[in-house]
Amino acid sequence: MKRYVLTLMVVFVGIGLYAQVQETANAIETQSKTMAFDNINKTNELIIELGDVETSGGLPLMEALRERKSNRNISPSEIDFQLLAKLLWAACGVNRPAENKKTVPSARNVQEIEIYAFMENGIWHYNPIAKQLHLTKAGDHRKSVSRLEFVGAAPVVLVLVANYDKMKDFSAEDKVFYSSIDCGYVGQNIYLFAASENLATVTIGQVNREAVAKLIGLKNGKVMIAHPIGYAK
Amino acid sequence: MKRYVLTLMVVFVGIGLYAQVQETANAIETQSKTMAFDNINKTNELIIELGDVETSGGLPLMEALRERKSNRNISPSEIDFQLLAKLLWAACGVNRPAENKKTVPSARNVQEIEIYAFMENGIWHYNPIAKQLHLTKAGDHRKSVSRLEFVGAAPVVLVLVANYDKMKDFSAEDKVFYSSIDCGYVGQNIYLFAASENLATVTIGQVNREAVAKLIGLKNGKVMIAHPIGYAK
Repeated sequence: MKRYVLTLMVVFVGIGLYAQVQETANAIETQSKTMAFDNINKTNELIIELGDVETSGGLPLMEALRERKSNRNISPSEIDFQLLAKLLWAACGVNRPAENKKTVPSARNVQEIEIYAFMENGIWHYNPIAKQLHLTKAGDHRKSVSRLEFVGAAPVVLVLVANYDKMKDFSAEDKVFYSSIDCGYVGQNIYLFAASENLATVTIGQVNREAVAKLIGLKNGKVMIAHPIGYAK
Repeated sequence: MKRYVLTLMVVFVGIGLYAQVQETANAIETQSKTMAFDNINKTNELIIELGDVETSGGLPLMEALRERKSNRNISPSEIDFQLLAKLLWAACGVNRPAENKKTVPSARNVQEIEIYAFMENGIWHYNPIAKQLHLTKAGDHRKSVSRLEFVGAAPVVLVLVANYDKMKDFSAEDKVFYSSIDCGYVGQNIYLFAASENLATVTIGQVNREAVAKLIGLKNGKVMIAHPIGYAK
């Protein structure tokens, strides 16, 4: 009987210790994720979970439209990671998860416009369905996007890319026509989100398309436009 | 002295009468304008003053983005004229009058995207700077826009057109690329306004481009897309 009680005690203490160790491990993991979320440039992750962003609030639509403007006076200060997550969702995130449909339409719903975020620590590919950022290439490549100096100085340079792999049934002419319209939908969302959150942004047509295509490994598609973005100076 | 007082009395009565007549005239004019504004299809005007629309209110931006969707279930009921005026302003109206800048950007600020509203009594051309609608062609031509039947049944069919006269310095390739992006900016505003005001709309790429170009007298440009729009069924 004494032996039986002793065994039970050892088991209980063991379980207790294990639970405590697990709790500590979880706490460390949570802390590390939170730190990564404060500042994407300090993470070592290859994939970052964006999770569900808060999809309420912002300026009333008519006021956002009234405040919509192109603004090149972008502060170099880094933007908060949660704000980046909301910006990406606003741009072309999933707003109807049951059908994987988005804040923007696309021709025949092929969803060919993809966003790459060029930041200090790397180029990140936005996956709106998985709600993740994937590291495409490490390193600071912001200055490669455009010959316009102020673009490379922005904390985030969003590059909008048409993925032609998703447009196999379109003629060459229609690929350009529809992907450009679809690109405009995303661009306007970026502008309105900027107006609503006091961010500065502007469409850049003068993009180094070949250099960017090489950096992101684009085989079949077109680098469309860029949106440097950050707090308004 | 008596004569002096009499003269003064006559003058005052005269001013009083004049003021009253003017007031009545203004009231009639206002009433007639208001009637025209209630229902554009009952007007005989060739030019309609849209005036300044209310640029506040609407859903918070993030909620408008959450509600954004393509919806073919458009009620045939006519939409209120003030709502149409707000819709057009949201789409590509002037939001910074000092510079004639708009709710949408455009490549090199050439503002080449123009809107024609096909309605029961005619085709109306939106002039965002003069804040007017100009009758381009009388008659109901909504069914000419697309072979898709539901399009012609909508109370308003907005047709977005690229005016290449404003893009003389662009290469042929850039004309298509940039005007398509600029068209997308306008289209997204239409979608978000619809989401905010419980209207139904959808982008129509299958437009009878030659027929529409002939109807509106387009010589140098491209008929881009159409947005049938009305209350959601």
